[in-house]
Amino acid sequence: MSFQPTDPSYEKRVRASFVRQPFMDLLGAQLLTVRPGSCEIILPYKKELSQQHGFFHAGTIGTIADNAAGYAAYSLMDADASILTVEFKLNLLAPGNGTLLTARGQVIKAGRQLSVCRSDVFVRRDGEEQQCAVALVTLIQLVGRPDSPPSS
Amino acid sequence: MSFQPTDPSYEKRVRASFVRQPFMDLLGAQLLTVRPGSCEIILPYKKELSQQHGFFHAGTIGTIADNAAGYAAYSLMDADASILTVEFKLNLLAPGNGTLLTARGQVIKAGRQLSVCRSDVFVRRDGEEQQCAVALVTLIQLVGRPDSPPSS
Amino acid sequence: MSFQPTDPSYEKRVRASFVRQPFMDLLGAQLLTVRPGSCEIILPYKKELSQQHGFFHAGTIGTIADNAAGYAAYSLMDADASILTVEFKLNLLAPGNGTLLTARGQVIKAGRQLSVCRSDVFVRRDGEEQQCAVALVTLIQLVGRPDSPPSS
Amino acid sequence: MSFQPTDPSYEKRVRASFVRQPFMDLLGAQLLTVRPGSCEIILPYKKELSQQHGFFHAGTIGTIADNAAGYAAYSLMDADASILTVEFKLNLLAPGNGTLLTARGQVIKAGRQLSVCRSDVFVRRDGEEQQCAVALVTLIQLVGRPDSPPSS
Repeated sequence: MSFQPTDPSYEKRVRASFVRQPFMDLLGAQLLTVRPGSCEIILPYKKELSQQHGFFHAGTIGTIADNAAGYAAYSLMDADASILTVEFKLNLLAPGNGTLLTARGQVIKAGRQLSVCRSDVFVRRDGEEQQCAVALVTLIQLVGRPDSPPSS
Repeated sequence: MSFQPTDPSYEKRVRASFVRQPFMDLLGAQLLTVRPGSCEIILPYKKELSQQHGFFHAGTIGTIADNAAGYAAYSLMDADASILTVEFKLNLLAPGNGTLLTARGQVIKAGRQLSVCRSDVFVRRDGEEQQCAVALVTLIQLVGRPDSPPSS
Repeated sequence: MSFQPTDPSYEKRVRASFVRQPFMDLLGAQLLTVRPGSCEIILPYKKELSQQHGFFHAGTIGTIADNAAGYAAYSLMDADASILTVEFKLNLLAPGNGTLLTARGQVIKAGRQLSVCRSDVFVRRDGEEQQCAVALVTLIQLVGRPDSPPSS
Repeated sequence: MSFQPTDPSYEKRVRASFVRQPFMDLLGAQLLTVRPGSCEIILPYKKELSQQHGFFHAGTIGTIADNAAGYAAYSLMDADASILTVEFKLNLLAPGNGTLLTARGQVIKAGRQLSVCRSDVFVRRDGEEQQCAVALVTLIQLVGRPDSPPSS
């Protein structure tokens, strides 16, 4: 699917929003690519992100799946809009056993109010990528409420 | 609903599993109460857990919702079983604007293989609790595969 | 939870909408109780509603779970609004093996735009009710677009 | 993705199961194509399938989305297994306004116990197909419990 962004500065806007999230920094997540209607986030492994078996915690998988979906949708939204996750649903397909997570978000439907996205999350191990999760995410656009704080 | 645990040491087993999760430690989450079929996890606010507006990040809400559901189900499982989240679905009802998150997990159905739980997440602000999320979670019991690592 | 309807004629409005759905008639579903923020729909068994084992088809369970949630939310909406299901998620807990399905929808959050409801579906057999499904449903209010067709 | 069926008679087995579902007959749904890991079901419009605006009822969309996912997964299962839907989640993307629904189910992960599928539902109107829903479905294989009734 190919989408036309309404805001030509969509990438700058998405990247500016991403860096304003302290939680992404705590995790160590990085925003890789941003395109109209899609987005890629990576998360390198560190022990602090793991569950009891040493794998990526499901919470970290869900977090970047949600964020990749959110920024995929946000790339198509108005310059003066902000975005909220309405709900998300995640299926875990395999243990997050590896050194790097990659979440790829893709808009399925971009609506005036609601957008629906899919996220696929992959884990890299020994040079191979395996899908470890798939998500469906519903997002809402809040028009006229910019994501960025007013400059002081 | 009232459930009968098959393992009399269920609480000890749940607490031992919780502390083996480094990600809970990174977040600062604490396991409050554990009862047969239910579980309560709290997460005090710190800036590192926030999204761009300074509220609890949806990823932190999802993480403790999933964990509270998981340990609610795990409390009813066999002593030698471990547990995996199959999928989870979260609706965000209000911004996570406050000083403390509380996730309450409750078993809806405890099955031999699959269990289904509900989690309700509340945010505390100025002494009042408001529900900020609700989740449905499906979990699977892996019999004969203890959660704890073999002692060496 | 207790809700205050904005439209005093909410019950009449809900019942009028229900009977305008030919699919409910094909199934044989009946709207039982309507209260502010909750709704009950029953579906008596007939062979045409069954799957390969003779039980209620999951599609019939999902249909009345969705409808009970929708009318629970619709009872709290404005007189001139209509309602659409945004998404719904259903966990099947037990086979639909019995003579009557009952879906009970309950509003969890009634928002200006979005509402979130829970539905519990029960199957009656030999005088006993067993829960066979639980659902979370997200709905959207379309203000100024009445559900009823303009009278001609 | 390409899948290898364990049962060479997978198509015959899927088709035999489909015709044993009286509810599919009541709706008028037809099983179109069956391939290893995918399945297509169509549903021609009739007034009895509609909601209050005359469009396909969400319950009919959900029913064939679930069935298409189920038979996509069932095509890869053992000859002596039966299948149950564990849970399904459906996003409605556009009104079901048209003359024909087509649900395309596709296996994302085929597991020994659990499988995860995606379903895309399209509505045809004036010769054009528009996507009206997307679903994620979790299914479980019951080994040694054939779907077909014992011959008498």
